[in-house]
Amino acid sequence: MEEKVRVVVDAMGGDNAPGEIIKGAVQAVNGRENICVILTGYQDVIEKELAKYTYPKDRIEIVPTTMVIETAEPPVAAIRSKKDSSIVAGLTMVRRGEADAFVSAGSSGAVLVGGQAIVGRIKGIERPALAPLIPTKDGVALLIDCGANVDARASHLVQFARMGSIYMENVVGIPKPRVGIVNIGAEEEKGNALVKETFPLLKQCPDMNFIGSVEARDIPAGACDVIVCEAFVGNVILKLYEGVGATLIGKIKGSMMQSLKTKIGALLVKGALKDTLKSFDATEYGGAPLLGLKGLVVKTHGSSKAKEVEHSIYQCVQFKEQRINEKILEHIRTEDKQQEN
Amino acid sequence: MEEKVRVVVDAMGGDNAPGEIIKGAVQAVNGRENICVILTGYQDVIEKELAKYTYPKDRIEIVPTTMVIETAEPPVAAIRSKKDSSIVAGLTMVRRGEADAFVSAGSSGAVLVGGQAIVGRIKGIERPALAPLIPTKDGVALLIDCGANVDARASHLVQFARMGSIYMENVVGIPKPRVGIVNIGAEEEKGNALVKETFPLLKQCPDMNFIGSVEARDIPAGACDVIVCEAFVGNVILKLYEGVGATLIGKIKGSMMQSLKTKIGALLVKGALKDTLKSFDATEYGGAPLLGLKGLVVKTHGSSKAKEVEHSIYQCVQFKEQRINEKILEHIRTEDKQQEN
Repeated sequence: MEEKVRVVVDAMGGDNAPGEIIKGAVQAVNGRENICVILTGYQDVIEKELAKYTYPKDRIEIVPTTMVIETAEPPVAAIRSKKDSSIVAGLTMVRRGEADAFVSAGSSGAVLVGGQAIVGRIKGIERPALAPLIPTKDGVALLIDCGANVDARASHLVQFARMGSIYMENVVGIPKPRVGIVNIGAEEEKGNALVKETFPLLKQCPDMNFIGSVEARDIPAGACDVIVCEAFVGNVILKLYEGVGATLIGKIKGSMMQSLKTKIGALLVKGALKDTLKSFDATEYGGAPLLGLKGLVVKTHGSSKAKEVEHSIYQCVQFKEQRINEKILEHIRTEDKQQEN
Repeated sequence: MEEKVRVVVDAMGGDNAPGEIIKGAVQAVNGRENICVILTGYQDVIEKELAKYTYPKDRIEIVPTTMVIETAEPPVAAIRSKKDSSIVAGLTMVRRGEADAFVSAGSSGAVLVGGQAIVGRIKGIERPALAPLIPTKDGVALLIDCGANVDARASHLVQFARMGSIYMENVVGIPKPRVGIVNIGAEEEKGNALVKETFPLLKQCPDMNFIGSVEARDIPAGACDVIVCEAFVGNVILKLYEGVGATLIGKIKGSMMQSLKTKIGALLVKGALKDTLKSFDATEYGGAPLLGLKGLVVKTHGSSKAKEVEHSIYQCVQFKEQRINEKILEHIRTEDKQQEN
């Protein structure tokens, strides 16, 4: 058992739980040898779902819990009061070292708050960051931070840049990822107080491929691999991406239903169009890691289906195998030494 | 002449100047009786362009200038040193009351800086705001502020909301425009320090239809008519709108060129698709007014063609006829009285 990566999966979280979540877990253990999944949630519900599939029994465990945190619940209170929930139980296993990672499609707030409160930060990390992958013209970029903690300081942003860079290089496999800071112009003197303070600090980091400011217009075209910003701006970017995409696609589909002629045309382009739109769909790229914690916590979309859950589990494997947290720690130590000199 | 609206147009600003700018000016005077256009720029160049068209000679004047501010020039220095430029001359005419409005597709920075420095703020307005119209699913929304002044205060945002509301009601013709503040969640307790401070102030404004927080995801679907945010966030929204749209459309076009089958399909849907994409193109909606100044200053896209220039001139007419600045002044007086009580 020693070499296997142990991933706890919240069987109760998300719009498609438990069916799609459990299906994704089964696909992951069937897909790769080195994975063990622990499902947290209502035992009877999980057993009933698992009975539908064939899989190596010794690589899926159930940790029964009796409570579920709903999306609408205030996170802090929920984490405190619902000790026997699928989320709290999962995070506790990571803290105790009984599992390497936790994946949930449930309440974002509860996962973020619980991740910090239960798993805890890596020593030296001032603030963990939620870092989803977003689609670009020919690939993906990491948007860091989109978490719940707004009004960040410059030192937070520098740590986000470093953690994001390590993640993109080692988990996504982009050599020397280009790090950019979100700004309202390309020049160094542009920006708000936070960006102006952060910019020279990023320029001084020899271990990072900092390329300067990136304007929001250039993000979808793939201007950089790690997009650094504070959480309020990150949230706006993430959600506007979804919103503009959805509205535009809706309008395009509508325009193709206008007449018999366009309907025939639509039939002919349908397949190609579908593939294109899929490649620009954020849900295709697994979950968002909460970086900077003592273990890995991954938040997948509320609307996650089996495939996203499966990919998120593989992400956890990559994270463990690439020793991401050890690399983050090394960098923090280098940082400390630089400051001492 | 008294009842005519006098609009100064910068003949030298923008990627398509002077040709498209002058064509737009001619279209505007030919389109409506009550418009006089004053063109600022190189006299010989303007005369040569004007010679191509038929129009009422008494309704287009030339004010010759000998300098041009380039887009790349630092705005403050350019406004100070290039007194005889098309931008400074135009803004000076507005300040002196020789014209009602100024339209430019030239340097955004110079127009913003010059607007404040030369035309000046309405007494009581703490900060002017640049407020472009952005396309939504079934219409448009006003995004206020996208200007050059970042790190706004709550009192600025309240004034932006009020000016934006007046503009949308009287110039765009939306009764009781829904005002929303950009936030990272729908609940009142969500947000950064600025949003948390501004939210209750907006709630207390009886003269405004404040609907609360709006998430970036819901902006393209048309969740509100006036989108209030500080300039850094506004800039990110505006530019990401363009960026996601452009990348997605590029990918869709690419997917339709994949095979003979998709190419035939593309021919059939082409017309309908083009109309749809046009309706979602920000450049279709005229220029962005710089609200809060003693006269109207409109910044149109650098890539403006004749149609956008023409529409921007009509916007100026509407602005004057609807007495927007008088209405803004009335509201500020009411605000002052409320604070006194």
